[in-house]
Amino acid sequence: MYKHKDLLALKDLSAGEISFLLDTAKPMKEIITRPIKKVPTLRGRTVVNLFYENSTRTRSSFELAAKYLSADSINISSSSSSVAKGESLYDTARTIQSLGADVVVLRHPMAGAPHLLAKTVKAAVINAGDGAHEHPSQALLDLFTVRERRGKIDGLTVVIVGDILHSRVARSDIWGFTKLGAEVRVCGPPTLLPPELEQTGARVFYRPEEALAGADVIIMLRIQKERQRQGLFPGLREYARLYGLNRERLALAAPGALVMHPGPMNRGVEIGHDIADSTVALIEEQVTNGVAVRMALLYLLTGGGAHHEADH
Amino acid sequence: MYKHKDLLALKDLSAGEISFLLDTAKPMKEIITRPIKKVPTLRGRTVVNLFYENSTRTRSSFELAAKYLSADSINISSSSSSVAKGESLYDTARTIQSLGADVVVLRHPMAGAPHLLAKTVKAAVINAGDGAHEHPSQALLDLFTVRERRGKIDGLTVVIVGDILHSRVARSDIWGFTKLGAEVRVCGPPTLLPPELEQTGARVFYRPEEALAGADVIIMLRIQKERQRQGLFPGLREYARLYGLNRERLALAAPGALVMHPGPMNRGVEIGHDIADSTVALIEEQVTNGVAVRMALLYLLTGGGAHHEADH
Amino acid sequence: MYKHKDLLALKDLSAGEISFLLDTAKPMKEIITRPIKKVPTLRGRTVVNLFYENSTRTRSSFELAAKYLSADSINISSSSSSVAKGESLYDTARTIQSLGADVVVLRHPMAGAPHLLAKTVKAAVINAGDGAHEHPSQALLDLFTVRERRGKIDGLTVVIVGDILHSRVARSDIWGFTKLGAEVRVCGPPTLLPPELEQTGARVFYRPEEALAGADVIIMLRIQKERQRQGLFPGLREYARLYGLNRERLALAAPGALVMHPGPMNRGVEIGHDIADSTVALIEEQVTNGVAVRMALLYLLTGGGAHHEADH
Repeated sequence: MYKHKDLLALKDLSAGEISFLLDTAKPMKEIITRPIKKVPTLRGRTVVNLFYENSTRTRSSFELAAKYLSADSINISSSSSSVAKGESLYDTARTIQSLGADVVVLRHPMAGAPHLLAKTVKAAVINAGDGAHEHPSQALLDLFTVRERRGKIDGLTVVIVGDILHSRVARSDIWGFTKLGAEVRVCGPPTLLPPELEQTGARVFYRPEEALAGADVIIMLRIQKERQRQGLFPGLREYARLYGLNRERLALAAPGALVMHPGPMNRGVEIGHDIADSTVALIEEQVTNGVAVRMALLYLLTGGGAHHEADH
Repeated sequence: MYKHKDLLALKDLSAGEISFLLDTAKPMKEIITRPIKKVPTLRGRTVVNLFYENSTRTRSSFELAAKYLSADSINISSSSSSVAKGESLYDTARTIQSLGADVVVLRHPMAGAPHLLAKTVKAAVINAGDGAHEHPSQALLDLFTVRERRGKIDGLTVVIVGDILHSRVARSDIWGFTKLGAEVRVCGPPTLLPPELEQTGARVFYRPEEALAGADVIIMLRIQKERQRQGLFPGLREYARLYGLNRERLALAAPGALVMHPGPMNRGVEIGHDIADSTVALIEEQVTNGVAVRMALLYLLTGGGAHHEADH
Repeated sequence: MYKHKDLLALKDLSAGEISFLLDTAKPMKEIITRPIKKVPTLRGRTVVNLFYENSTRTRSSFELAAKYLSADSINISSSSSSVAKGESLYDTARTIQSLGADVVVLRHPMAGAPHLLAKTVKAAVINAGDGAHEHPSQALLDLFTVRERRGKIDGLTVVIVGDILHSRVARSDIWGFTKLGAEVRVCGPPTLLPPELEQTGARVFYRPEEALAGADVIIMLRIQKERQRQGLFPGLREYARLYGLNRERLALAAPGALVMHPGPMNRGVEIGHDIADSTVALIEEQVTNGVAVRMALLYLLTGGGAHHEADH
């Protein structure tokens, strides 16, 4: 079962809690693969998407997850909000709670902002990405996707390739996959690997050829072009040559290895066109699973888990 | 009946198909003219409005059409989307489909973009304007409006005045009215008339005095001020003098001629204030009919036409 | 009862009408303090939020008020609208009405714009702030908040401190509280006090120490930093020292005086941190009451008051 008020970071959760979240997402996926994608479960509940950074992908996923469960949802983005008038996150949060929010989904450039928010409001807070810290719902959908395909996480070798240093997705994935028993390897340019990684249990590789050997799951991260301006990698073409996933590198992985990407992809840079469009790539499946996972989160955090407690 | 997966261009439809779309819009109009504008028809269906150009008018019309039918809808605009991160339309489309979209309404600056999208996704695609190519739902509402007032399209004389060259509305109107048996005349500055028009069956006029003689329907197009900067017409005042619809020019048309405009109007430029506010002008009726037509499209493209097939 | 088509300004309403609006908000507040915040009352009704100025706070409040009553609502903001194409408010209004709007909520930088709109459309118009003129729903929520806490308005002393000159909130509050029998005092820098205030019955003070003596209700206004650039007040620090609400100044008010602020607050400027977070401050309660008041307005202006008429 899931006893927390919020979902802030996978680092804080036990393997049992993570598994319970994934279990809850399973019937949600059944709902959204029906022709009539709608249940009245969260009717009269309010979800506020509070985004201080643009993210159509994540915001749309939460917005539709709310609608499929019949919750009311509104979007507040920093460009059009009181934020522009300099209101603190604290006051904005109190206001949103007073408007009737049951769940606040927060995307914020500052690591730790969702934790601050969670202490401020009685509403449930879901971290939809905070700085380079965590993006737990993305990791949950990655876990869900792998578990659905492989039946388990335990014992698998998961390789994450790219800008690990600035990636909240990588950080949440490392915690999630490690807690569920996978071996996690990270690989990228030395300038884009964080120094403190060993604490997480993840193994660091500098050459994808070594990292990918025997991999069951390969997660390619989006490379941000601004990192090049910051001098952190030499150029897109060079990056593609050294770290991009192509047929040769994929052949080093275990047979039938799964390829994932949080999107949006830089095709031809971190991932080749042929691989992005191949059947081993689960990129679209990840998007669908993201909606299911977020439905599960909205459901559990609004009390839907309450009558599950007896069962577990 | 309507057998296509998408609505991309009126050029591709038969007269029978267009008539069927108009027939389906009729009961929809009854729904939206009731005090309680809501039916459960599309409950559990998802409409994504994907707009790469601003258009409050068209976007609001589709958004409300979806709501009146109880569909879920979300808006994605280029300014806040992954587009800004350089994601291709192809990948954006696959993502939107994976989120659960049943219908994608696309506005795009590039002619042909909706066709590309339609090949990419299983969801139904509605072209809400692609470059200077087509804007089929606008033409359908124009056809609906004329048919409702006159009982028919066949045999009418329809005159379209303005920047034909850059107008997707004009292109769709030409196809739609021609296919349903109207005589279509276009008129505008020579710099704003396309060279290939004769193929469509439309007759080209350079002087509105000649074009309007005996007209049953007059469609005035919005003149874009940027065309002046491009040197394509001399100035708003001169344009109004040469092409604007005023009482004198209207008097040349057939008695009781209908005046239409896709909006937003440049009052005092392409259309005089007195005419815009007169009873012959159907500009507001067009807006209402636009919602009805879009309801019909959403209904038919999500399979609502299936049980109609037996009837037709 | 409330017989007007619109809500444009509290100046135009009688004490009885204002009281009736507040009475209607009471059961609405019960709805939104339940776990399931949803009633089917306005199903099939359409609310259009037309905002020519950014205001997440007010827009979100109206948007949720509509959703809690099951109305359909869409947002149109100037940045993405036909407004950018130069369409007049008149034509935009007619278009919105033709789309099916039952209520138009208008925020506009020009005083009087909602009155113009109200004459143009059959739909009900709610003024959500017009220039420095009025913001009646904000004043109604202030009245509701005070009445709920004190059981009455009549006979209370209400002090409004800040930039009275540019504040539509102040103007609506002055009318509302005065009409319901309160003594209203305004206080601020002489450069930020309007000359014509005496007509309203409000008393003008230049020193908060005098204004606050014996006050039952203190409404602190947000100071706009741009007024400093305009030379209308010396600086935030100086403003805080001369006009900010601190413990010493609060002690001058009547025991148990209520502190209110329309938000967003400049903490440490017009209001001290300790007061903003104290139990006398009703800032969050105001936000909740704002939703209730707006639900009442949407309900009454869509005809919900009709069957109440017999009762009053």
